[in-house]
Amino acid sequence: MMHDEVEILYVEDTAADVELTLVALRRSRIANRVHIARDGVEALDFLFCHGLHANRASVAPKLVLLDMKLPKIDGLELLQAIRENERTAMIPVVVLTSSNEQKDILNSYKLHVNSYIQKPVDFDQFQQVVQQLGLYWLLVNQTPDA
Amino acid sequence: MMHDEVEILYVEDTAADVELTLVALRRSRIANRVHIARDGVEALDFLFCHGLHANRASVAPKLVLLDMKLPKIDGLELLQAIRENERTAMIPVVVLTSSNEQKDILNSYKLHVNSYIQKPVDFDQFQQVVQQLGLYWLLVNQTPDA
Repeated sequence: MMHDEVEILYVEDTAADVELTLVALRRSRIANRVHIARDGVEALDFLFCHGLHANRASVAPKLVLLDMKLPKIDGLELLQAIRENERTAMIPVVVLTSSNEQKDILNSYKLHVNSYIQKPVDFDQFQQVVQQLGLYWLLVNQTPDA
Repeated sequence: MMHDEVEILYVEDTAADVELTLVALRRSRIANRVHIARDGVEALDFLFCHGLHANRASVAPKLVLLDMKLPKIDGLELLQAIRENERTAMIPVVVLTSSNEQKDILNSYKLHVNSYIQKPVDFDQFQQVVQQLGLYWLLVNQTPDA
């Protein structure tokens, strides 16, 4: 995969959730355009072309899909870092998390998350939600040109 | 319809577009929860319970669907007014417009639009897009409690 073909940056540390999500995206034929980051630092390295990603072409993904509870830098801190830098401020960010705590929803919206989704516990519903969000943000939504 | 049942505030002055959109939403069984405002002033009256809406219960819709070119107050001004007031700042706003001008997309994102959609010209595609956005924002996305 060329790095500049990445359309979704998916930040998730739970291997089982990554697998489930990729299965659902594969069914929508978009799984080969996903880059996985296992924590907030890896995600920032990818977005800002640092560390292991120093040589990638600096093309913004069409979507950052974000878990809330992440090692090193958590989801809210990562969202804030994305919004504060003009190179990344306009990238659509969707939180996909098991938390349905009001404070998490509220804080995400205060930091201008584009959308907040609580992961359904049911397998089929989870698959359906991931497919819907993938198709919506990649095919329906438009972002500014780089 | 009770006003507190409104889930989508749809701000659109073109009657033909309103009709097309309602047909698509009806197919997703959500058309009875849409309130139509024909211009930006009507939309603000609805959101802030002024004028004709002085007596409605102040419940935020789950989605504001917004045309860009509107009489009186245009789409970007309306978006700004929604974001600047703490009572409405966190309502998801989706721009649905015929414009694909970069400056409109860019200015919408600068004002923290949640999503920007260019209306497909093709009838079937338009219907599909409206259904996808309706289901996504009403059933998949979560907003903070009032």
